Amino acid sequence: MTGEFAVIEVIRSLLPGPGDAGQVWIGDDSAVLPVPAGDRLLLAADTVVAGVHADLGLTGLDDLGWKAMAACVSDIAAMGGDPLWALVTVAGASGEEVRSLYAGVADASRCFGCPVVGGDLTGGPGLVVTVAVAGTCDGAPVLRSGARAGDEVWVTGPLGASAAGLRRLRSGGSSARDAEGADLVRSHARPVPRLAEGRAARSAGATAMIDVSDGLAADVGHICRQSGIGVSLDYVPAAKGATTDEAMSGGEDFELVFCAPPGAPVGSAFEGLRPPVRIGECRDNHQGVRLAGAEVAPAGWEHQL
Amino acid sequence: MTGEFAVIEVIRSLLPGPGDAGQVWIGDDSAVLPVPAGDRLLLAADTVVAGVHADLGLTGLDDLGWKAMAACVSDIAAMGGDPLWALVTVAGASGEEVRSLYAGVADASRCFGCPVVGGDLTGGPGLVVTVAVAGTCDGAPVLRSGARAGDEVWVTGPLGASAAGLRRLRSGGSSARDAEGADLVRSHARPVPRLAEGRAARSAGATAMIDVSDGLAADVGHICRQSGIGVSLDYVPAAKGATTDEAMSGGEDFELVFCAPPGAPVGSAFEGLRPPVRIGECRDNHQGVRLAGAEVAPAGWEHQL
Repeated sequence: MTGEFAVIEVIRSLLPGPGDAGQVWIGDDSAVLPVPAGDRLLLAADTVVAGVHADLGLTGLDDLGWKAMAACVSDIAAMGGDPLWALVTVAGASGEEVRSLYAGVADASRCFGCPVVGGDLTGGPGLVVTVAVAGTCDGAPVLRSGARAGDEVWVTGPLGASAAGLRRLRSGGSSARDAEGADLVRSHARPVPRLAEGRAARSAGATAMIDVSDGLAADVGHICRQSGIGVSLDYVPAAKGATTDEAMSGGEDFELVFCAPPGAPVGSAFEGLRPPVRIGECRDNHQGVRLAGAEVAPAGWEHQL
Repeated sequence: MTGEFAVIEVIRSLLPGPGDAGQVWIGDDSAVLPVPAGDRLLLAADTVVAGVHADLGLTGLDDLGWKAMAACVSDIAAMGGDPLWALVTVAGASGEEVRSLYAGVADASRCFGCPVVGGDLTGGPGLVVTVAVAGTCDGAPVLRSGARAGDEVWVTGPLGASAAGLRRLRSGGSSARDAEGADLVRSHARPVPRLAEGRAARSAGATAMIDVSDGLAADVGHICRQSGIGVSLDYVPAAKGATTDEAMSGGEDFELVFCAPPGAPVGSAFEGLRPPVRIGECRDNHQGVRLAGAEVAPAGWEHQL
């Protein structure tokens, strides 16, 4: 058992402090930050629960901390925005567990350019990590609701790597340790939000965008419902080593799916980035998601409450 | 069991939607909001856990939702700031529990002028509610670290009502139902952040401020450590029906303790509000908190992790 205040000092030692005078990060009642430049403030929050979103027998506490940060920063990427600051709350972790968890939080924070400026620590019946991120957007953010019939549907990369990595970890043995397996396991344990890709899609004139967190079918289903259109997919690019089913409904890849009018400058907007793949088209002659003409249930994962 | 998307519709029906065009509240990857006016952005987060911060055998799920909002908004009050928007995440609640919880969240949101603009719902091993609030401050926020020897120490109201209310609830029977008991129970179940008082203290020239969330001794101890001073209390005002011990270490009253130089216009700044009470003085001849000359351990509640 360790006192909360001692643990806060450990957290402080893992994270950078504010560079600018007048800012307050960890240690007061609230963080004090400059009002951001840009047109809009973006706010998002995500909760990650040990045993629900991560199997701690297969991946580390540091990976859980990373994933909590990644899931929330990905929500900002899916608007075409930039993350600015994160708050991290942890319930149900011992002092030693907080240290491991924050090693991953700190890694993610550096990698995504999103410093942790505050949060909370408390007891609890299980390990629950919540991340809230404030971000900004230099221009109008890309919503889920703007897709129109005729728009092309794009994805920023092949899907299913996270699910395939989890399958390899579960099967144990050497399949998680060859070169392909190590890549897949890394995609599962340390997924990376597509921030540059989100900005590129916005600058290309994307009409709607979402991150693939629950599964392609489910997430494209959100765009369909919220834009009032159907999506006809002709192709689902699977990551090397992933099955078609994993690519279709695996989730947590954090690739972005976006819609853009034909002729939108997608190629030039993604210069220097991995080129996105055109996977289908928005339609007004059906609702929901179809793949190669056949109805696809939004089979992605939905929490039952 | 209810699907997450249906539950989100229930939440949406309990909460108001954005009034202004261009804003997005619940339902997209992140909320989209105007960049606030004011000098500073404030960010705070608090987690409330059933069985740790609330006994659901004694108070309702709606009260838990209220308390989660109150604890976080109180962090903004303790800077002298104004809350703007809240994100609420809930782990481990059934669809029916989410509905009850959000009834209290919606009450608090209206009462504190802090709309809920987003969040997350997920499964979990127990009920864990996290609230993150973005706020602003029209001028320099009041930190914990600015108190100086010679400053007077003030509290915005009598303490211990929340702890006394919990005691009445635990003892059962009629003691929770007479007029005094009902007031105390309400203080425990529906504590109110002191937003107007925080702004008044800031405008009076407060040098340091904190909300009484862990207990007076513990929270004044934070000001001592972070300002590098001692505090000599000569008086602890107890709420009617509360014991001295409850007033000293009960916590969760959300009254504000602030320091201000002698002669600061405290009276005029609090015109129209309950007058704050002068309870002591900042000293440089000792560290920590003393009451009537005797050392007071920072006996307020500290989480052990």
